[in-house]
Amino acid sequence: MLEKDTLAHAVYHKMMENDYCSQWLQIEPVLLEEGHCKIKMVVRQEMLNGYAILHGGIAFTFADSAFAFASNSYGRLAVSINGNMIYSKSAKEGEILFAEAKALNVTHKTADFDVNVMNEAGEIYYYFRGTVYRSSKEVLEIK
Amino acid sequence: MLEKDTLAHAVYHKMMENDYCSQWLQIEPVLLEEGHCKIKMVVRQEMLNGYAILHGGIAFTFADSAFAFASNSYGRLAVSINGNMIYSKSAKEGEILFAEAKALNVTHKTADFDVNVMNEAGEIYYYFRGTVYRSSKEVLEIK
Amino acid sequence: MLEKDTLAHAVYHKMMENDYCSQWLQIEPVLLEEGHCKIKMVVRQEMLNGYAILHGGIAFTFADSAFAFASNSYGRLAVSINGNMIYSKSAKEGEILFAEAKALNVTHKTADFDVNVMNEAGEIYYYFRGTVYRSSKEVLEIK
Amino acid sequence: MLEKDTLAHAVYHKMMENDYCSQWLQIEPVLLEEGHCKIKMVVRQEMLNGYAILHGGIAFTFADSAFAFASNSYGRLAVSINGNMIYSKSAKEGEILFAEAKALNVTHKTADFDVNVMNEAGEIYYYFRGTVYRSSKEVLEIK
Repeated sequence: MLEKDTLAHAVYHKMMENDYCSQWLQIEPVLLEEGHCKIKMVVRQEMLNGYAILHGGIAFTFADSAFAFASNSYGRLAVSINGNMIYSKSAKEGEILFAEAKALNVTHKTADFDVNVMNEAGEIYYYFRGTVYRSSKEVLEIK
Repeated sequence: MLEKDTLAHAVYHKMMENDYCSQWLQIEPVLLEEGHCKIKMVVRQEMLNGYAILHGGIAFTFADSAFAFASNSYGRLAVSINGNMIYSKSAKEGEILFAEAKALNVTHKTADFDVNVMNEAGEIYYYFRGTVYRSSKEVLEIK
Repeated sequence: MLEKDTLAHAVYHKMMENDYCSQWLQIEPVLLEEGHCKIKMVVRQEMLNGYAILHGGIAFTFADSAFAFASNSYGRLAVSINGNMIYSKSAKEGEILFAEAKALNVTHKTADFDVNVMNEAGEIYYYFRGTVYRSSKEVLEIK
Repeated sequence: MLEKDTLAHAVYHKMMENDYCSQWLQIEPVLLEEGHCKIKMVVRQEMLNGYAILHGGIAFTFADSAFAFASNSYGRLAVSINGNMIYSKSAKEGEILFAEAKALNVTHKTADFDVNVMNEAGEIYYYFRGTVYRSSKEVLEIK
């Protein structure tokens, strides 16, 4: 399914090419559709905070990457305006996490997304919600 | 000033000891007081997103670390409930950023903080706001 | 169904008794369960802003009331720590709106809820998300 | 000072003319400048929730009105995208409250504002933060 030659895939690969941070997270795509994205990562030691759990900011970063791929998947450059995250459960080193982004609301100029970060059993650990401004630039034409 | 033997300093050093993520960020303390904290970091290539600017999640992580040090500085373990961030300007590779956390409101059980992330000139790039639950555990007694 | 003698109903009626603001909104209960609540109201002229649409704050107030009933429905007094709302569509005078609150995450001391405000067709106009602190007081014992 | 014939004043009066909700709140202007607004209201019984304190949603509505006047004060129609509020202290019936909105960040297409709601002594009870989309329509030309 991930081999399909869609706009969402083209945008993902173009964005990931220079996304050193998502590369550091070692994220893998699971689902890439228009307005809908699911990615995967494994919690590593360098992602932990002083209490031996996943640093909240890295959970946010992971969700924010899913948010970026989903909000840019329509082809137009989408720029984050804000994001917020609710911490529900703590992830430990070695846990496999998934971030699934879904569009709540897409208008000509802005769009809102929910991103749930969950474990393999689908249990939600972090609830992210964010808004983008949709510019008129085309992602695939940016140099 | 940073050599003072205060509770805020003791908590910071205890938390940083195993905070592999803040170590990865290479943060440095600038100010550590009760309910008030300022830290510093330099934007590195592995922190960038696909558009060659600081990944919003890493800006959030940096602010979240300042938030953690400030909210735990009273000695009691503070656990993040939520955080949100407004993206105002984009940071580039090599820029020096500061995150300054200040308490808005501290009650027996919860506390709210603002964290502004700014450049050396004091220009604010990211506005973070978050809430913690204040447990009854003492940070310095956690093993 | 609304006649059932449950804790959620008892809490709702106790809270509504002196909730002059929810009375002003003229809300009606549609569903009252533990951690789940749906209420109804009609948009009136005095709820409009200067652009002839429902004032965002009144949409928030309506969602916040559903949030309060759902978060107190377990019997323990729940106090709002924060709330946020995304504006998706605008409601007009005379429209019938529903606010449905569902628990995302309930711990001993805090809880998070989503409240979607929608029209009769189920189209979502406003997305609310909020957090409460759960005190040890019992709602039905408050004088 | 409030008599000055500025754009911020003209926008405020144009917006208030049909803002039945702000009229219901009985708000009064204290300061109206470009990107900066302060308004006043008194907490009345019909604004209270079931625990005899100001309903959080009405505190939000009051802040949201200040946000609207400040974000439209530049002359271009500004539409709320989202808002969030932290509840710090509870207001009681009869208390006089002020909402002061200040621009954090204004770009061509969006803008972010902080609105602090405080008592006469300047003690902050509620912290509001919100974002608008700035359309190209002129407020004074809307019919």
